[in-house]
Amino acid sequence: METIKVAIIGCGTIANSAHIKAYMANPNAEIKYFCDIRKERAEKAVSDYQCGEAIEDYHIALEDPEIEAVSICTPNNVHASIAIDCLSAGKNVLCEKPAARTYAEALEMQKAQRQSRKVLNIGVVNRFNTGVNIIRKMIESGELGELYHVYVSFRSHRSIPGLGGAFTTKSIAGGGALIDWGVHFLDIVMYCSGDPQPLTVTGQAYCKLGKNMANYAYMNMWAGPPNYEGTYDVDDFVTAMIRTEGPSITLNGAWAQNIGIDEMYIDFLGDKAGIRLQYGADFKLYSAQNGALLETIPKFRMEDMFQNEIDGFLTCIRTGEKLPSHIDTVILSSKIIQAIYDSSDKRAEVSF
Amino acid sequence: METIKVAIIGCGTIANSAHIKAYMANPNAEIKYFCDIRKERAEKAVSDYQCGEAIEDYHIALEDPEIEAVSICTPNNVHASIAIDCLSAGKNVLCEKPAARTYAEALEMQKAQRQSRKVLNIGVVNRFNTGVNIIRKMIESGELGELYHVYVSFRSHRSIPGLGGAFTTKSIAGGGALIDWGVHFLDIVMYCSGDPQPLTVTGQAYCKLGKNMANYAYMNMWAGPPNYEGTYDVDDFVTAMIRTEGPSITLNGAWAQNIGIDEMYIDFLGDKAGIRLQYGADFKLYSAQNGALLETIPKFRMEDMFQNEIDGFLTCIRTGEKLPSHIDTVILSSKIIQAIYDSSDKRAEVSF
Amino acid sequence: METIKVAIIGCGTIANSAHIKAYMANPNAEIKYFCDIRKERAEKAVSDYQCGEAIEDYHIALEDPEIEAVSICTPNNVHASIAIDCLSAGKNVLCEKPAARTYAEALEMQKAQRQSRKVLNIGVVNRFNTGVNIIRKMIESGELGELYHVYVSFRSHRSIPGLGGAFTTKSIAGGGALIDWGVHFLDIVMYCSGDPQPLTVTGQAYCKLGKNMANYAYMNMWAGPPNYEGTYDVDDFVTAMIRTEGPSITLNGAWAQNIGIDEMYIDFLGDKAGIRLQYGADFKLYSAQNGALLETIPKFRMEDMFQNEIDGFLTCIRTGEKLPSHIDTVILSSKIIQAIYDSSDKRAEVSF
Amino acid sequence: METIKVAIIGCGTIANSAHIKAYMANPNAEIKYFCDIRKERAEKAVSDYQCGEAIEDYHIALEDPEIEAVSICTPNNVHASIAIDCLSAGKNVLCEKPAARTYAEALEMQKAQRQSRKVLNIGVVNRFNTGVNIIRKMIESGELGELYHVYVSFRSHRSIPGLGGAFTTKSIAGGGALIDWGVHFLDIVMYCSGDPQPLTVTGQAYCKLGKNMANYAYMNMWAGPPNYEGTYDVDDFVTAMIRTEGPSITLNGAWAQNIGIDEMYIDFLGDKAGIRLQYGADFKLYSAQNGALLETIPKFRMEDMFQNEIDGFLTCIRTGEKLPSHIDTVILSSKIIQAIYDSSDKRAEVSF
Repeated sequence: METIKVAIIGCGTIANSAHIKAYMANPNAEIKYFCDIRKERAEKAVSDYQCGEAIEDYHIALEDPEIEAVSICTPNNVHASIAIDCLSAGKNVLCEKPAARTYAEALEMQKAQRQSRKVLNIGVVNRFNTGVNIIRKMIESGELGELYHVYVSFRSHRSIPGLGGAFTTKSIAGGGALIDWGVHFLDIVMYCSGDPQPLTVTGQAYCKLGKNMANYAYMNMWAGPPNYEGTYDVDDFVTAMIRTEGPSITLNGAWAQNIGIDEMYIDFLGDKAGIRLQYGADFKLYSAQNGALLETIPKFRMEDMFQNEIDGFLTCIRTGEKLPSHIDTVILSSKIIQAIYDSSDKRAEVSF
Repeated sequence: METIKVAIIGCGTIANSAHIKAYMANPNAEIKYFCDIRKERAEKAVSDYQCGEAIEDYHIALEDPEIEAVSICTPNNVHASIAIDCLSAGKNVLCEKPAARTYAEALEMQKAQRQSRKVLNIGVVNRFNTGVNIIRKMIESGELGELYHVYVSFRSHRSIPGLGGAFTTKSIAGGGALIDWGVHFLDIVMYCSGDPQPLTVTGQAYCKLGKNMANYAYMNMWAGPPNYEGTYDVDDFVTAMIRTEGPSITLNGAWAQNIGIDEMYIDFLGDKAGIRLQYGADFKLYSAQNGALLETIPKFRMEDMFQNEIDGFLTCIRTGEKLPSHIDTVILSSKIIQAIYDSSDKRAEVSF
Repeated sequence: METIKVAIIGCGTIANSAHIKAYMANPNAEIKYFCDIRKERAEKAVSDYQCGEAIEDYHIALEDPEIEAVSICTPNNVHASIAIDCLSAGKNVLCEKPAARTYAEALEMQKAQRQSRKVLNIGVVNRFNTGVNIIRKMIESGELGELYHVYVSFRSHRSIPGLGGAFTTKSIAGGGALIDWGVHFLDIVMYCSGDPQPLTVTGQAYCKLGKNMANYAYMNMWAGPPNYEGTYDVDDFVTAMIRTEGPSITLNGAWAQNIGIDEMYIDFLGDKAGIRLQYGADFKLYSAQNGALLETIPKFRMEDMFQNEIDGFLTCIRTGEKLPSHIDTVILSSKIIQAIYDSSDKRAEVSF
Repeated sequence: METIKVAIIGCGTIANSAHIKAYMANPNAEIKYFCDIRKERAEKAVSDYQCGEAIEDYHIALEDPEIEAVSICTPNNVHASIAIDCLSAGKNVLCEKPAARTYAEALEMQKAQRQSRKVLNIGVVNRFNTGVNIIRKMIESGELGELYHVYVSFRSHRSIPGLGGAFTTKSIAGGGALIDWGVHFLDIVMYCSGDPQPLTVTGQAYCKLGKNMANYAYMNMWAGPPNYEGTYDVDDFVTAMIRTEGPSITLNGAWAQNIGIDEMYIDFLGDKAGIRLQYGADFKLYSAQNGALLETIPKFRMEDMFQNEIDGFLTCIRTGEKLPSHIDTVILSSKIIQAIYDSSDKRAEVSF
């Protein structure tokens, strides 16, 4: 396979912790550009990884005919515009999650993909997680019987990221706990239960614990220290109920809550068996047999899901295979998240 | 205070474990009749407690002018008719929870109460629980700040009662996990948050794990052994989301589920502090002060809530005081439960 | 802020573990001299930290007009003389705890500070500890009600430092467990309770377990191995009772005792609530509300108290702000410690 | 040995739980009178134990020449007057602890004993405890080396007895935590260290947590339910330091405190070994040998200390042996307790 030349747009945390090293570990890829509007971050990447060229304007990469693939690792507010530009320029795109700030933006991206006939995958990296794929197969094969309900908990005592920064500014991020964490959890549910169409969505999103920024007590903070001059107008707690063509789904999520217990798991309830998946870790299977109740702990080699994601992206550029991370699949959770925010605003259920 | 003569209607578990001994411990009460359509149960009570007279037909008690108070401890299907008969006969009534099988029946009971001007209290015994009352005061006094959401979990791995009996027959019980357990949990939420009016209700109730009775694996069973010839047509799992004039509420409840972890708690989420109440046990308060996160474990003398309930009932017969367990308050959770079942049937949100 | 040039006098444990790295982490400070009468220790510091000049005689630093700040990290016996020299030379001084061997020496230091109008802070580093400050605020705000008694326990099974060395020689250290450990504990009590004036002091200090040095059994020893040729004439156990204008205080302290349980804590007893602070760690708050007894565990980000101390020292050189570690405040615990030793000698209470 | 006829004066808790059954278990004793000013309590004793005669006025027993021995189990305020009456009438007396409300009263009792030449023992029952006697022998034999300090902790989170009753009324009980609990602990210390003469006493007694009776939160209460109409003017916290001809002693005691940890122990600190005695339970010995630190847990048959006390009392009536519970010994702790209260009032040390 001929080497694929890649441009990294946005050289922040997710680029450095996941994308760049996965491209470098793939023998068929070569990073040609590191792009960041903060030039020094692009330059640092060139220096750290000893490859590529630092640029400030991503159009330079788009105009370079050698570039076939682009990873978009920017804040959410420019996902859509950059992805559409890239596709229009004939590039294949891996865009970090969430697809976009809104469902409307995501639909524009999907449209651009269709017109360009290039790849547009979204960084729903759990679809490349070993444990998640085992669960998906178990459900598909009927091991759980009828999957009638899924309960999703992504609740943390204190985990607001970069208070006052891009993560907590709605015009940049599109939302808070739901769009940033919920998108991963919901994506796992959708993937494992066969991406069923949503029928009704009701939910409430609350902006409570971070809005009085000076009073927000915490032990540590990811994505940078607080910027008390910044903006905090996103959801730090969200609750919702979704009916689908498959199981019903309820969720409670919190970047921050006044319950001092972190509960990050998904319960898949089937009439024959059930699964509790600890997010990012292992899972247990509960079943029954001959009158006995069974608790099963599976062990398996956990592959590097980011590597799988990047490898899959590079391969499908050549093969044309449609991955589970394709915009056509991911658009569904974008639709659901939008509906939760809409339902929250009007305080009533949304029906499709 | 002159002694109040009492009739116990229904001499099953709840009568024996709670009502009868509480009346006997109250110096102002005297049990005159034990009534049960299974005469031998009434006779056993007379023999066990060395007082009263065993009757089969509760009308005998209603015609006795000495009887001032009645405890209704029957299955749910005759709550309404007996309560209405008692009130019409000028008796004061303490009726076990749930008020009735349906909201319509509960409204009939409320109407009968208003016409009779006698007491009609419902056995929402948690309103007489020490810990619950401490939480209620904390919320009322603003210690939690704005209470914006409550999450309710009453999920058990295996706890279907008397499979195939009165508890699992919809025409008798009116429902399953929701009406039997959920009524207690929802009642605590309503009580602690000031009995707010519901605005929207959406939910799904599932009859999954018990319906194939022979295949139901379990470790033990309360309310009697399985009757495989009986009926199982009630919910063993329920999920719902409720918007109120106060907090939003989500719940997941299971008499049985294929997740091998019992989770019986209520999370009260306020913007200043939160509480996790372990049902029937103690609670923790989570707050913050001067940048520190605080976890508080209260210890308190746990009073006998059934005794408080019965004492309160007897006193209010004399004083006319309206207790928190009055039908006028309890009717709200009856309305919500009905709406959850209705919403489940039509697979859409119910608005008031 | 213009850079402050600093001299470190004494390059032993406390200098290396705390002072030096805090100065280096402060952008406004620059260490110009490392001074130690054992020249090789000063030279090691220059080499380790890649800055400054090694000197043997601190007068060199005092004669350098660029030096504005001095940290005194020597044994206790030269605290007073060096601090007075420094102040007389117009330098600002941070002197490790205890201020001096005796109250008389500490008063001389205070006098020199007043004449020089320069800063003289003492290394009562717990006044810059996050948890201690939270407790102080709780007490100040009345959360404990009336603080009527404080019990202080600094008892270790076996912790005599450098047996036979500077720590255990009265003419150098001024005392043992009381002046070395007790000063910290007493300082926390004084700080948290608003630095109340002492009224009466009675106490007994015992030199028992270390005096027969060869027989002293121990598991490990801080501040160097035993020197069996050295001196051991200090207190390894002390007990005292102090009346103040605020709470009464009792203490039991042991560098070594024949009770195999380490108990290092301070109990603040208020009539509304109480606190047990585990020295160097976290604390619990005990209160009551609505008949319930509450146990509260605060979590908070623990700041680096040595960094806070040094940062505060550097800032107050510029601003003139009087910190809680100023000699004028710290002199009170020096007075109390002196009175405990005096009371022990004459076996009677000392009144002020 | 000829049977000794006994009168029990005061038929409350301590009589029923300890004295009466011990007399009944001793073949040489016979209870002839149960006396109580509440006649029904005396009558209940006659009925319960099927022996003796119920009387309301103890003078009936004093006038009965058959009576040789009297147990005084009344509230503290009548200990002295009844004991003196009994001795004057030629009876041998076992009087419950404390000897009296004040040192002056105790001295009167001692005087009456000397004049009567009859037995006057005080109910310092721990002097008949197996573990306490083992400790006493260890100290006496030099196993601890020089016993230089004893620390006494009798601190409970919540244990005020009969709030508003005899225990909490100073004119009846003479004091609170110190006189009721402290007397036992101090007595053990005095006994084990050879009843050394006190030299100086300083202390503070506080009446804080119970005085606002309605606000006193507690889990359970011994010696009866609260009487909110009653009096609460005794110490619920006490601290003191005592110098003796032997070891120094410090103590902290609490019937109630806002520290949620019960600590009921005595630490005996010797320069060779030390002991921590858990009150009412076992003890540990800490020593050193050949450079090793040793922790020793002794096991022994725990005898019934009340039985030992009563048996000893009965025997010494015949033999004339002076027991460790003789008023001449016990008077010392009465003197110390008085001095603590006096020192607390004048806020200064008391010297003898």
